[in-house]
Amino acid sequence: MRAVDVIRKKRDGGSLAAAEIGYLVDGYTRGLIPDYQLAAFCMAVLFRGMDEAETAALTDAMLRSGTVLDLSDVPGVKVDKHSTGGVGDKVSLALAPIAAACGAVVPMVSGRGLGHTGGTLDKLEAIPGFRVDLPVARFREILRTTGACLIGQTAEIAPADRKLYALRDVTATVESIPLIAASIMSKKLAEGIDALVLDVKVGAGAFMKRREDAERLARVLAGIGRSMGKRVVALLTAMDQPLGSAVGNALEVAEAVELLRGGGPADLRQVTFALCAEMLLLAGLARGLDEALARVDAAVAGGSALAKLREMVAAQGGDPRAVDDPGRLPRAARTREVPAPSGGVVQALDAEAVGLAAMALGAGRTRVEDAVDPAAGILLQRKVGDRVARGEPLAVLHCGDRGEPPEAVAERVARAWRIGDAPAAPGPLILGRIG
Amino acid sequence: MRAVDVIRKKRDGGSLAAAEIGYLVDGYTRGLIPDYQLAAFCMAVLFRGMDEAETAALTDAMLRSGTVLDLSDVPGVKVDKHSTGGVGDKVSLALAPIAAACGAVVPMVSGRGLGHTGGTLDKLEAIPGFRVDLPVARFREILRTTGACLIGQTAEIAPADRKLYALRDVTATVESIPLIAASIMSKKLAEGIDALVLDVKVGAGAFMKRREDAERLARVLAGIGRSMGKRVVALLTAMDQPLGSAVGNALEVAEAVELLRGGGPADLRQVTFALCAEMLLLAGLARGLDEALARVDAAVAGGSALAKLREMVAAQGGDPRAVDDPGRLPRAARTREVPAPSGGVVQALDAEAVGLAAMALGAGRTRVEDAVDPAAGILLQRKVGDRVARGEPLAVLHCGDRGEPPEAVAERVARAWRIGDAPAAPGPLILGRIG
Repeated sequence: MRAVDVIRKKRDGGSLAAAEIGYLVDGYTRGLIPDYQLAAFCMAVLFRGMDEAETAALTDAMLRSGTVLDLSDVPGVKVDKHSTGGVGDKVSLALAPIAAACGAVVPMVSGRGLGHTGGTLDKLEAIPGFRVDLPVARFREILRTTGACLIGQTAEIAPADRKLYALRDVTATVESIPLIAASIMSKKLAEGIDALVLDVKVGAGAFMKRREDAERLARVLAGIGRSMGKRVVALLTAMDQPLGSAVGNALEVAEAVELLRGGGPADLRQVTFALCAEMLLLAGLARGLDEALARVDAAVAGGSALAKLREMVAAQGGDPRAVDDPGRLPRAARTREVPAPSGGVVQALDAEAVGLAAMALGAGRTRVEDAVDPAAGILLQRKVGDRVARGEPLAVLHCGDRGEPPEAVAERVARAWRIGDAPAAPGPLILGRIG
Repeated sequence: MRAVDVIRKKRDGGSLAAAEIGYLVDGYTRGLIPDYQLAAFCMAVLFRGMDEAETAALTDAMLRSGTVLDLSDVPGVKVDKHSTGGVGDKVSLALAPIAAACGAVVPMVSGRGLGHTGGTLDKLEAIPGFRVDLPVARFREILRTTGACLIGQTAEIAPADRKLYALRDVTATVESIPLIAASIMSKKLAEGIDALVLDVKVGAGAFMKRREDAERLARVLAGIGRSMGKRVVALLTAMDQPLGSAVGNALEVAEAVELLRGGGPADLRQVTFALCAEMLLLAGLARGLDEALARVDAAVAGGSALAKLREMVAAQGGDPRAVDDPGRLPRAARTREVPAPSGGVVQALDAEAVGLAAMALGAGRTRVEDAVDPAAGILLQRKVGDRVARGEPLAVLHCGDRGEPPEAVAERVARAWRIGDAPAAPGPLILGRIG
């Protein structure tokens, strides 16, 4: 077999055999097939697509490029949640302890933030002492004792994906649904899960701007899961404005804790509970959506979810007191209000602009090797439908020392709010369910 | 400017500015932009194409990646011919001396054979002593004194093309008309020519199998020439069966000499004369096609073209006696007939199969670094429309020591002839003219 022939076949619209895809991925991982051949291949896939069998074969080849965890010795149904990424998306921080408190086992391998979207690992690391780089043996132990553990991708998990993702990023071949789907699913299936709930974000602040693209991605992801014998359900959720009010690592931890205390923003609660209920259903821990939602509600209302978070933080080396006392989280030296340039009703709030502003304050990174400032971020004071008078705060910036000057960020981020006279209300949050 | 943004723009169907194309080509030539980004770019171009301005900009950037010869101090109109490659295509060997004998100046930079098609340089090197690696000063001197000089591409000519061609070869991005056209034209325009005649081959043995593709390529080539202020005419010529009877380096030299003596196969004569007449027209050496063809005829009939070949061979270090005595050309140790497996009329003769068989005998190369056997090749005894009895020779193989066993090649190449009962005749040779 020759790589050039496999590239040509895809280029000409052919359907590749699993052996052809495996040959490319395996050769690439082992350094036998060069970057330039995979770059041409990815571009051909971007134009020609991949059918369900090809996408499953690509996922399988990437999954097998590294270690696949076997959690069969950990009792319980192993179920995870994956989000395609949004702004203010701290769902995992609340969802994992709720699901674990309800009896699910949540082996979650998360990523870091890049660009305008945040990453769960960065948020967790805002908790003093919290470690995400645990060895596999400890991951397994925490899952057994605590029911949930959140770690970072290790070098052993899907190395083909790491190599390929870096290549796609510099060759304009990111935006291909089969490549995106194989990347997500190879990492998630390497966790040794039985079932997976996907949160496919749709909207201006999401990777998928259009509902039909998000739906297509969700179907492909679910198809891969099916072909691998895993139960997969996807919810399409809105990502036009940020989720909740906090954007930035420590600020988002505090908001997730609020949620587990029974408070927090309504939109965050709705999305978190809906996703968590799907996890319970997949894990066989509830017989219907109503029962699942009732169990989620009870875990929060009864305090067992918050107790589980304390337990998780302690298990991963973090200071559990930070859960009860947000004052123990990193706090920005300075804050600065973003005043409304005019009065009226918020018609729209651009999630991407807010995400980029938080990044500019130091909460995110432009390059993989950048460090983040855990205290930096933005607390939104007005969201879509809210009324504001001229000069009242739209948001409060939490500024560290490393980011851009707050004045410049404030001026820029103010443009993220579109204020008008008409009454307005946010659209529905849960846009669809595929599974 | 970032390479990834230029790739994305082309991927999304945008039209690139000359500065964007120049940035990619220049960065690639200087090793600042890596192979993988150009590979993705070439695949995007393959799918999205390039408009006339983009193709001209690409040609210009590739041309400027190296030295552009300035032949303005050589008197006369500098006119060259380029063929897209066929089997048995020894046209240049006869055409260059004819055109020079008629007063044109022919600065021809040629290539080597690769795959099933031969290369002019390999054919010339079958003449004992003939050198194709002359320094530019000597090239210029021979053009001034002799009127024609045939050399190989130097490292200074269009280095971007050499690098890019090697990359396209292994990334399945060869078959893109703008990329093919820019590759051809950047090399040809670097010769310092005023005008160019293109022989765009069409058919089973050509790179362009379909007439509409060949016509499209011809139009793009002519368009680039126009945009660079050069006169360009293209003939579309048939390449279903090989041109002439000889396939293989020394055998083709001998056949070209036969042509200059007034003999040789009729198909070879028709194509050579037609292309040469176009050269004379472009060079202003004839007022119409009839006059141009008459001048070509006269140069052959009067012996001035043959004398010019002797002069050219001597100027490039070759033994001019080989022109008059083909016995001085390399000769194969063994020959082997290919008998007709059945009697009838030749319905078709597969040029590609003949080219591959000649390559298997040692006349061509599969890899750039292979050496060729100048004596190896095939003399066709029957072509389309010819009658053959069972067991009569279809061809004679000329076998060296390095090629595959002649028995195996004979068995395989016999399948190149389709023999049937119906009367048959070759189709027209000159299929169109674009200019």
